[in-house]
Amino acid sequence: MINSVACAYAEKSPLVVISGGPGTLEKRRGVLVHHEVKSYESQWKVYNEVVEYGAILDNPRTAAAEICKAPDLALKLMRPVYLEVPRDLVYSEIAQPEAFEPSGLKVDEGALSEDSDEILGRLTTSRHPVLVVGVESHRFGLQKKIVTLAERLQVPVVSSFLGRGVFPTTHPQFKGTYLGTVSPAPLRDVVEQSDCLLLLGVLISDVSLGIPPDCIDDSNSILCISRDVSIRHHVFHAVPLDRLVDRLLQSPNLPRRENCVPGWQAGISPEIFQPYAEEEPIRVRHVIHVLNDFMSQHPDFPLVCDTGDSLFATVDIRADLCIGPAYYATMGFAVPGSMGLQAASGMRPLVLVGDGAFQMTGPEIAHCQRYGLNPIVVLLNNSRWEMLQAFFPQADYNETVPWPFARLAEL
Amino acid sequence: MINSVACAYAEKSPLVVISGGPGTLEKRRGVLVHHEVKSYESQWKVYNEVVEYGAILDNPRTAAAEICKAPDLALKLMRPVYLEVPRDLVYSEIAQPEAFEPSGLKVDEGALSEDSDEILGRLTTSRHPVLVVGVESHRFGLQKKIVTLAERLQVPVVSSFLGRGVFPTTHPQFKGTYLGTVSPAPLRDVVEQSDCLLLLGVLISDVSLGIPPDCIDDSNSILCISRDVSIRHHVFHAVPLDRLVDRLLQSPNLPRRENCVPGWQAGISPEIFQPYAEEEPIRVRHVIHVLNDFMSQHPDFPLVCDTGDSLFATVDIRADLCIGPAYYATMGFAVPGSMGLQAASGMRPLVLVGDGAFQMTGPEIAHCQRYGLNPIVVLLNNSRWEMLQAFFPQADYNETVPWPFARLAEL
Amino acid sequence: MINSVACAYAEKSPLVVISGGPGTLEKRRGVLVHHEVKSYESQWKVYNEVVEYGAILDNPRTAAAEICKAPDLALKLMRPVYLEVPRDLVYSEIAQPEAFEPSGLKVDEGALSEDSDEILGRLTTSRHPVLVVGVESHRFGLQKKIVTLAERLQVPVVSSFLGRGVFPTTHPQFKGTYLGTVSPAPLRDVVEQSDCLLLLGVLISDVSLGIPPDCIDDSNSILCISRDVSIRHHVFHAVPLDRLVDRLLQSPNLPRRENCVPGWQAGISPEIFQPYAEEEPIRVRHVIHVLNDFMSQHPDFPLVCDTGDSLFATVDIRADLCIGPAYYATMGFAVPGSMGLQAASGMRPLVLVGDGAFQMTGPEIAHCQRYGLNPIVVLLNNSRWEMLQAFFPQADYNETVPWPFARLAEL
Amino acid sequence: MINSVACAYAEKSPLVVISGGPGTLEKRRGVLVHHEVKSYESQWKVYNEVVEYGAILDNPRTAAAEICKAPDLALKLMRPVYLEVPRDLVYSEIAQPEAFEPSGLKVDEGALSEDSDEILGRLTTSRHPVLVVGVESHRFGLQKKIVTLAERLQVPVVSSFLGRGVFPTTHPQFKGTYLGTVSPAPLRDVVEQSDCLLLLGVLISDVSLGIPPDCIDDSNSILCISRDVSIRHHVFHAVPLDRLVDRLLQSPNLPRRENCVPGWQAGISPEIFQPYAEEEPIRVRHVIHVLNDFMSQHPDFPLVCDTGDSLFATVDIRADLCIGPAYYATMGFAVPGSMGLQAASGMRPLVLVGDGAFQMTGPEIAHCQRYGLNPIVVLLNNSRWEMLQAFFPQADYNETVPWPFARLAEL
Repeated sequence: MINSVACAYAEKSPLVVISGGPGTLEKRRGVLVHHEVKSYESQWKVYNEVVEYGAILDNPRTAAAEICKAPDLALKLMRPVYLEVPRDLVYSEIAQPEAFEPSGLKVDEGALSEDSDEILGRLTTSRHPVLVVGVESHRFGLQKKIVTLAERLQVPVVSSFLGRGVFPTTHPQFKGTYLGTVSPAPLRDVVEQSDCLLLLGVLISDVSLGIPPDCIDDSNSILCISRDVSIRHHVFHAVPLDRLVDRLLQSPNLPRRENCVPGWQAGISPEIFQPYAEEEPIRVRHVIHVLNDFMSQHPDFPLVCDTGDSLFATVDIRADLCIGPAYYATMGFAVPGSMGLQAASGMRPLVLVGDGAFQMTGPEIAHCQRYGLNPIVVLLNNSRWEMLQAFFPQADYNETVPWPFARLAEL
Repeated sequence: MINSVACAYAEKSPLVVISGGPGTLEKRRGVLVHHEVKSYESQWKVYNEVVEYGAILDNPRTAAAEICKAPDLALKLMRPVYLEVPRDLVYSEIAQPEAFEPSGLKVDEGALSEDSDEILGRLTTSRHPVLVVGVESHRFGLQKKIVTLAERLQVPVVSSFLGRGVFPTTHPQFKGTYLGTVSPAPLRDVVEQSDCLLLLGVLISDVSLGIPPDCIDDSNSILCISRDVSIRHHVFHAVPLDRLVDRLLQSPNLPRRENCVPGWQAGISPEIFQPYAEEEPIRVRHVIHVLNDFMSQHPDFPLVCDTGDSLFATVDIRADLCIGPAYYATMGFAVPGSMGLQAASGMRPLVLVGDGAFQMTGPEIAHCQRYGLNPIVVLLNNSRWEMLQAFFPQADYNETVPWPFARLAEL
Repeated sequence: MINSVACAYAEKSPLVVISGGPGTLEKRRGVLVHHEVKSYESQWKVYNEVVEYGAILDNPRTAAAEICKAPDLALKLMRPVYLEVPRDLVYSEIAQPEAFEPSGLKVDEGALSEDSDEILGRLTTSRHPVLVVGVESHRFGLQKKIVTLAERLQVPVVSSFLGRGVFPTTHPQFKGTYLGTVSPAPLRDVVEQSDCLLLLGVLISDVSLGIPPDCIDDSNSILCISRDVSIRHHVFHAVPLDRLVDRLLQSPNLPRRENCVPGWQAGISPEIFQPYAEEEPIRVRHVIHVLNDFMSQHPDFPLVCDTGDSLFATVDIRADLCIGPAYYATMGFAVPGSMGLQAASGMRPLVLVGDGAFQMTGPEIAHCQRYGLNPIVVLLNNSRWEMLQAFFPQADYNETVPWPFARLAEL
Repeated sequence: MINSVACAYAEKSPLVVISGGPGTLEKRRGVLVHHEVKSYESQWKVYNEVVEYGAILDNPRTAAAEICKAPDLALKLMRPVYLEVPRDLVYSEIAQPEAFEPSGLKVDEGALSEDSDEILGRLTTSRHPVLVVGVESHRFGLQKKIVTLAERLQVPVVSSFLGRGVFPTTHPQFKGTYLGTVSPAPLRDVVEQSDCLLLLGVLISDVSLGIPPDCIDDSNSILCISRDVSIRHHVFHAVPLDRLVDRLLQSPNLPRRENCVPGWQAGISPEIFQPYAEEEPIRVRHVIHVLNDFMSQHPDFPLVCDTGDSLFATVDIRADLCIGPAYYATMGFAVPGSMGLQAASGMRPLVLVGDGAFQMTGPEIAHCQRYGLNPIVVLLNNSRWEMLQAFFPQADYNETVPWPFARLAEL
């Protein structure tokens, strides 16, 4: 569990973990309990390293307050939280909760006003503004508002890898998913030549699927992330992203630009992604070709991918919603992640997963039948941990074992 | 990984975890790193909750000392330890180690002398002494010495569940594996009527496969565990088990009892474990019957089991070496555990595992071919989490999903 | 304050610290508060290093439970505890306390029975049993019971330095205060030749005013301290001192020895402590002579001393009650300590203090008049930190400054 | 010691604490040590709550690195640090230090450039800019540069309480020490009507001697403190104060304003601070009158004050350098503080201290003679803790005791 919750922390997913724990009576008596390791608090301490807030509900008088506080924090900070119920208190009656006072995450209204004014000024005076949408836009449910904002501004829009879900890939203003140096030159030009880059909810990190810090000109970028806005070298604190977008949309000063969208449009380049021809080995680009055919028939299918080659391949697949561990880069995300996505949204996912990751969590697919789920899993089986091999080519231990999943996939 | 290491901690297995970690330069610069969660020390902090000792090797001057210290502690305390190498220091040259000074786990020679005298006195004056061997006897490699001790004493011997490996089940003095109230009455009599119960390396806990505390008469028992010996209500500290056994064996006062072994002998009761007859459903007792047939042909095969029904079934299977998570009770232990056992010892294991546990880690079996392993896996598939159902019969969520492992097993 | 509370922890004095702290609203808002250092919890964290238990009373629902728990722990464990009241909750109404459940410091009745039997057996069979009384006998209020015990046993009694208050120095069985190698030979013989040394509530430590560990023969000693009893190399846990003394007194097996008290009696040797003669400089032994004269007139005056030479001098002064920081060895204890003693007990103290310690806390004496206190302070002014000089004779920085206390003392 | 170091932390004074600690051998053996409380690390843990960085020098191989790092951090962050030497390693030889790499406190040059441009722009366009100098200007040794800056700008200058030392009080541009609502109206006007308030190194806090947050118009203020600059609602991080002042001075855009200094000049109002007349009781204002007479004769004498009334009185005393615990507000600062000041600087201090604070640390004055110090101490003896009484007038426990300091002062 720890790794999944850590992934939620790193990727900013709200999540409430409810766990059992050692009983309060056992604690008081000092009895050894099976599953217990160093101390009665070990489990809680371990989770505290990967959640925003953790509590043991060992006091029926204060339990209600904790139960209100945890999800409030999870939603405001987009992070996992942890509640542990001692096993002898599961049926305890708890005190009536006091009127719940939400967490004191204040909004600096003055900063909100000042930074939206500064952003509007820059959007107005710049010649080539570009909008980059990232994962937090999705977390805060801002998809529609951001389409409106983009259409009002009439600027080109790109997404970060995780921001794919925010903006429709078929929208005429959408130019592609920007990944820094691995992106095609025309897309890089759109982003890197811009004199005003407005990044909404984009995580900057060291992995190539985040926006790499050195591809962006600090002096032209406006980075809105979490509750901070950075413009050139100054920062505004306590300005939540959703409040900022609302304020931009409501401003009479929002510039209505015209005809400023550059002509280039990211697309499936026919030269690269040709269909498979018999005489050659199958390559990822053939798969991409087929999947783009498929997606053109099923434009509403979300794409869920694992890390590594799967993640990179998704960049060239036209899908409006794309989900993957782009920052935390953990393996084994895709299959169970797609099941959760379908259970929660009803959408049928197309899943891209390598053989390495599938060996980790692929068998979870067994639960699909019971819950009426039917994700379409595409297994990219190259019989080794390709990414690890790529980083350290001398390694001779990265072969995966073929059995039993090759057969499983046949079933 | 965390759960496996926690299991090693709880079950007292020495283990050295060597892990990569964030680079020291990244730390100094404060760069976000993928896989990183709350802080650069999060991974180390999490492991510290489940290991005896953990260190980050970020100082080439002191690294050698840590590298010597960790396995020394692991072996002396029979616990896991953790060493983390920052990813930018993997190829660092480290300073010549100073002469290594082993950890200061002192032995109280006076206590050793006094407690062995007291134990010898009690063995001499009691009428029905019984020897109970537990898992730590195995950890300290005392199997042969304990057989010698038992034969010199001519007392009946029983094992705790995890102590099965210590004493040969076919030895005439061996009376069975004692599990408290779930044991057959004659075996309970042997243990519970004894006026001097010498427990060597036995963990006492709340699970039924440990020795339950309330089945033992404190005033007649001598409990030797870790580095402590408890006799009635007093304790001797700093007396390692291996030193104590040596001392008992070397003492001229070790009583040589004669003819005091009671007649009862645990055995496969033919009434209970009949072979399978066509007209009825297959039950665990039929499986036990078959497996005992098999074990009689292969007396040297070790038995590896998972928790739950598998663990309970092993009690009635005659195997000299039996390994399972009897104290920590984690699921998914058996298949990978059996592979490690065969890789380390060369012995071919018989594995007993339920369908629930197999869904967790069963696919690891795919690695057997590469490493030339061939454990024999018996899958007890009752299509549900039976133990969970037993504790909370109202639950209607304990069915397991049949696919794909039913089919896998067929492959 | 920290040092005083740390002293209470080390010397096992029950103490409840009630302190103000930053307000809960300030905490929530993150306002800087004067007196605040690193964080709002800094004060609480600092105190936690020197108390047995510390809590911030920031929840009116649970405050009552904390307020009951703290003094209960202080009295049971003879340690300081800490309660912090946020400054905006001083007048808060708190919830009705639940029925208070005292801390779960269990008593092992079986161990109590077994160890008292073993002690009685040893007292009966030994030839020269000796009773050593220590500070914890005082903390648990066992003075009268220990006199009864000693008179029933008819054994010689010595005290540790801090145990002076427990046993009357004029009692015919009292042989002196034993300090190891610095004690006079006859007293050392009484203690060190004993074949059964019963130490009740004695702290063993590295300072010469504790009982030094290497002067005592482990195999003949019975050490009862805190909640443990150590006999030779085994230990009984969870046996509180007061319960043990009760049990010994009530036992029909308590041996009534006769005529076994050796003839030697610690006393003021006239050769050593002669009165002051004009022609020589005044020395500590002259002061001791005078003070013993004084104490013979005022046998009920308690003696309070500071650390260093004052502490050593008290050994030769006949006083029934003697208080000083014999284990923690902090300076500045005596003057304020004597005021607390008189305020609490009504007894008028004789105080022995050096000039170094007096410079630290001596001015507190100014408060005596208001509270009607009149301790008699004897200031041993040798114009330097003699103990520090003794440990490091090359030091040339241990002179104290004469002014203003020389003059103050004249006032 | 803890309180003094905490004061240094809160007030931003660099300080290196070198302390002895328990020996490494004792630690390894687990011996009880006098002065030790909960654990061998307790002292270190306590100090860690009040210092920026603390280390135990228990490794001769790494000690040199720690010894270089601690003062580097102290000076860069203006905070106390702590080094503990185990008592058995005092004479250990340590390894040759590696080339010392100073702490990675980076400077954001881009931010420095951007914020100095913004500040210069605001200074140029505003009509009534005012400079407020605070304690950190003093800590970074910027006095001369700030006088130059003020003279170039030709703006009025006020100081925060602790900023008194930075700017000469007799300088024609100096307008007084601003304390918010307790300041005289003309001074308040200068500060509060300014349309560009440049605060250099000023701590904002809840005590009246800091600048109170609600007296300042955020939208007109530029706050430079520690390593941050806040302008209206945005912040620049990693911009050290000294670097910023240098940059402003070197800029060709620094505006040279003329004749914009308002006419009002803070001064000793003759109506308020009349000399003492026989028939009335002596009041603080009479003392201020006398001290201003005195200071006019000795303009170079620094003023050192304690907290409370002494601190408030200093506002009306013309002194170029004034030192006191204006933020942390601890009592007992003045007498030992003045001694340190004279020892370090050679300047003879005038000290203002109340009777309450003098009772705490006044006796330290005894050390003056040895070190050739002669601070002039003015004791404001109103026989009670006036500030405490002021906050809670119902208290009847705030009287101080007259003896012995009234007499001491006579000596």
